[in-house]
Amino acid sequence: MRFTPMLRNAPATAKRSAHPQPLGWANTLGTSSASAALKERVQRPAYLNRMASAEELAPLFKVRTLSTFFFDSGAEYPSLRGYIGWSGFTGVGYPKTVPTAIANYIEKNNLQADPATKRKFNLFVGASCGPEVEERWAKNDMIARRYPHQVGKEIAKGINEGRIEFADKHLSMFPQDLTYGYYNLHKKHGDPKKPLDWAIVEATAITEEGHIVPGASVGATPEILQSAEKIIIEVNTAIPNLTGLHDINQSFVPPNRLPYIISAPQDRIGKNAIPIDPDRVVAVLESKMPDNTGQNAPETEDSRAIAKHLIEFLSAECAAGRLPASLLPLQSGIGNVANSIIGGLAEGPFENIMVWTEVLQDTFIRFFDSEKLKFATATSIRFSPEGFDHFYKNWANYKDRLLLRSQQVANSPEIVRRLGVIAMNTPLEVDIYAHANSTCALGSRMLNGIGGSADFLRNAKLSIMHTPSARPTKTDPTGISCIVPFATHVDQTEHDLDIVVTEQGLADVRGLSPRERAPVIIQKCAHPDYRDLLMDYYERSLHECLKRGSGHEPHMLRNAFKMHLNLMEKGTMKIDKWD
Amino acid sequence: MRFTPMLRNAPATAKRSAHPQPLGWANTLGTSSASAALKERVQRPAYLNRMASAEELAPLFKVRTLSTFFFDSGAEYPSLRGYIGWSGFTGVGYPKTVPTAIANYIEKNNLQADPATKRKFNLFVGASCGPEVEERWAKNDMIARRYPHQVGKEIAKGINEGRIEFADKHLSMFPQDLTYGYYNLHKKHGDPKKPLDWAIVEATAITEEGHIVPGASVGATPEILQSAEKIIIEVNTAIPNLTGLHDINQSFVPPNRLPYIISAPQDRIGKNAIPIDPDRVVAVLESKMPDNTGQNAPETEDSRAIAKHLIEFLSAECAAGRLPASLLPLQSGIGNVANSIIGGLAEGPFENIMVWTEVLQDTFIRFFDSEKLKFATATSIRFSPEGFDHFYKNWANYKDRLLLRSQQVANSPEIVRRLGVIAMNTPLEVDIYAHANSTCALGSRMLNGIGGSADFLRNAKLSIMHTPSARPTKTDPTGISCIVPFATHVDQTEHDLDIVVTEQGLADVRGLSPRERAPVIIQKCAHPDYRDLLMDYYERSLHECLKRGSGHEPHMLRNAFKMHLNLMEKGTMKIDKWD
Repeated sequence: MRFTPMLRNAPATAKRSAHPQPLGWANTLGTSSASAALKERVQRPAYLNRMASAEELAPLFKVRTLSTFFFDSGAEYPSLRGYIGWSGFTGVGYPKTVPTAIANYIEKNNLQADPATKRKFNLFVGASCGPEVEERWAKNDMIARRYPHQVGKEIAKGINEGRIEFADKHLSMFPQDLTYGYYNLHKKHGDPKKPLDWAIVEATAITEEGHIVPGASVGATPEILQSAEKIIIEVNTAIPNLTGLHDINQSFVPPNRLPYIISAPQDRIGKNAIPIDPDRVVAVLESKMPDNTGQNAPETEDSRAIAKHLIEFLSAECAAGRLPASLLPLQSGIGNVANSIIGGLAEGPFENIMVWTEVLQDTFIRFFDSEKLKFATATSIRFSPEGFDHFYKNWANYKDRLLLRSQQVANSPEIVRRLGVIAMNTPLEVDIYAHANSTCALGSRMLNGIGGSADFLRNAKLSIMHTPSARPTKTDPTGISCIVPFATHVDQTEHDLDIVVTEQGLADVRGLSPRERAPVIIQKCAHPDYRDLLMDYYERSLHECLKRGSGHEPHMLRNAFKMHLNLMEKGTMKIDKWD
Repeated sequence: MRFTPMLRNAPATAKRSAHPQPLGWANTLGTSSASAALKERVQRPAYLNRMASAEELAPLFKVRTLSTFFFDSGAEYPSLRGYIGWSGFTGVGYPKTVPTAIANYIEKNNLQADPATKRKFNLFVGASCGPEVEERWAKNDMIARRYPHQVGKEIAKGINEGRIEFADKHLSMFPQDLTYGYYNLHKKHGDPKKPLDWAIVEATAITEEGHIVPGASVGATPEILQSAEKIIIEVNTAIPNLTGLHDINQSFVPPNRLPYIISAPQDRIGKNAIPIDPDRVVAVLESKMPDNTGQNAPETEDSRAIAKHLIEFLSAECAAGRLPASLLPLQSGIGNVANSIIGGLAEGPFENIMVWTEVLQDTFIRFFDSEKLKFATATSIRFSPEGFDHFYKNWANYKDRLLLRSQQVANSPEIVRRLGVIAMNTPLEVDIYAHANSTCALGSRMLNGIGGSADFLRNAKLSIMHTPSARPTKTDPTGISCIVPFATHVDQTEHDLDIVVTEQGLADVRGLSPRERAPVIIQKCAHPDYRDLLMDYYERSLHECLKRGSGHEPHMLRNAFKMHLNLMEKGTMKIDKWD
């Protein structure tokens, strides 16, 4: 037994000499400053020699250079800014104290007022973080680039006003593209094999090997850690030690990749913690800030109507023998429709349901408690504060029926297709041929990003989009039709969707040609205020296109966006006529 | 040994009594009519008792009822027409004699002239067939519905004139959707567990078990056979017995699906032949008609320039350590650019190249012969007649370096992603933010269908679209710009593409935001005749959208299709100004 700590510490010390320690405080602190709670969580004592305060760390996040010029178009390309990765997914499991201290430091020293001191970072996170860090960074104009997903008014504003470069990527692909080196192609500083300068991650425990047990999300944290030169770990002692909740597999790069040997949601292929090189850990600190989640979106009459249509449809599929009586693993997005569907299933006719999804929200607690849900796996648990309270208090009830994986696995096309997942997501708009816009209002204004919608919808056995048929504008309670002639941005193609459902009804477009799809989608799904208008678009388009022998997917390109243009000018999509 | 044939035949005979034999000739013919060549190919003697001539079979293909009404829109929905599946992929391995005899019969009896006798079928084939059958059927208006891909003027005409219902589906998904029952949702006759009434397939041999050894394509043949009530086999004795060329795995339906245990292109997971229930074989006949392939598209100056840009890019990726020296498995589409790329690789700097693709064309012979190509796997070999001659004559040189799989496996997202395939395909047009149109000219006129392009481009490690920068119209040699403001049909999204390349240059959009992508794509890829026009579109859009806080992906929706509308009216995309 005496031998163990030596084995554990000696190589780290030996190797560390080869890695210059950039942080001066490392040896000035010590285990003495660690709380009892922290000591219990950190099973690798050597890390406690690297303790630091968030305030000490904040000034280290400097900007290497403000900007350079990209290509010869003259566009600014902030390639040389600091490259930072955070843990976090759907506002859960993100680092809180260091990002907050950095923002404090910048605000206190008024650094953003002067271009010479202004700090702007390239920020990579699996998905969204809590508003107190991400929104604050955006408000302070501290974000030069932010991939691949975000949530929040301030960050969306920065993106849409041109201050933040943003690209949304399928969430299954973002982590692998990071490890491929696709996000540091223009980074000129640091180790070229390490796409990120810094990883700042939250842990709920650290193993003897120095590996990281995440909080209630895994997301892209494994690949962010793998990609970073320097690692800062915030051990959150306000959240329970979640050891055992996660299944962490290693992420390989082709040509050395192997199958994911998963054939059911409960299958485990990995370990409890994220492996890292301990020598790259430059600071450990204790955090006590909870995940700053809000309430889930409340159900509405429309969301309940949509859920009812869907549960009827799933029942009919079972009756026809196209689905087993316990369905197939479900993926359900975030939002009130998702809440209504899961709520409906908790009271519905199906037993022993399995869930293979990206994120769990509050209604899953009810679903678990109904005993209808047999097992759920995701990459994140995004409960409300009350939801988390209940969940952690009743941990014993849930722990054997739940597993969190990395987003590369949770959203993997391989597994989604293999399991035959039933995928359900909300778009901004769907067009009459079943292309869907999941991201950009009026083709240009980014909301949150594509997230995992296309990972699931492309590969699911049943690909379902649910949306209210219309949304209000300031002047018209049904000013926006969610069924449109031509989607102003296409994230999901007609080759991907099986079912479109609104509170009006459900359109089953499986096996239908575009000319068959359009009348079904319009008649079943469009709001009555728009039904005739859309049928008129379709019929005129059909007539014109057949006449010139191009009627496979009839359109009048001159009018394709007329409803949208009317919305921009007059606050409603209701137009008088097409020509 | 005496026991073997009894075991082989007895159960088949016993079971056959439970399946009424619909074909009256079955016992009137016999092995006596089989040629020596056929007897050598058919290792299951019982099948030789089911020999029939194509002329006998032709009248059996009746239409159950001409049409019914679909939904309450009044649209015609030919759900009750005969459901037929054929083997075949990219014009190779399709049945020839029976489809030809059916067309002969219909023409001879002038059946199409009278609605009471008119015959129209729902036709399902993995991809395209030879023109002498598919084009002839289309010309005779014998096709009510045709999924999921096609090639030919007559069939495209039928689709675009509204006579043929067509829906293009990702080629990896079509076979599974067929087995899921998604294409017979509205079929009211026959066994509901069998989506197809008939499968007509070509074989080059039949095993003792009665299983089918395909020709030079596998495609969707396994699932078409699995889905059919009645099977007709054309054994083609003019093509060599290709036993050993194929790797046929079983196709499962969720929740009983397992990983494909493939981690390199040469890995085998199946058998040499397609398993079928011998009792469903209602007729066997000999065919001597070769695959009716044409010449490959000749290289051009532009295609060579594109290949040059690409090979330079791949070399740079190797130098940067993002690709191994032997690259990663290649997928290359059909056409002259693909020919130039493969030709270029045959003379290029890379050794031990592997290919994981959908279809091989003639240049692969040169690639094999160069010894630079180590192994290739696909779902179809589409050589020219001379190419096939050379290939079959030198079979010993190729047989150990080549494998054909079903399209569900060849195009599988699972394997494409795992292997890190380098995917290269040609679109009709790409927009300034890297959405691509692979299917519909001017948004409405179907060319061939999406094929496997999105299977590969979504999942590849490097997703490359190559196109000439401009195409001619009748009046303007550069009347069509292949770089456009807004793709008139989106098959590949901005979330899927890494590289856009034309003869002008290569745009590497990995890691770039939409605002960074547009100038790069325009400056590197657009034809000089359109460069300023497109930059003007982008800059005006940027200005307008930033002003109203919606500048993530700037567009002027009113002008998004202006270049296309100008093309429709004036034969060129060159417009004078945007507003």
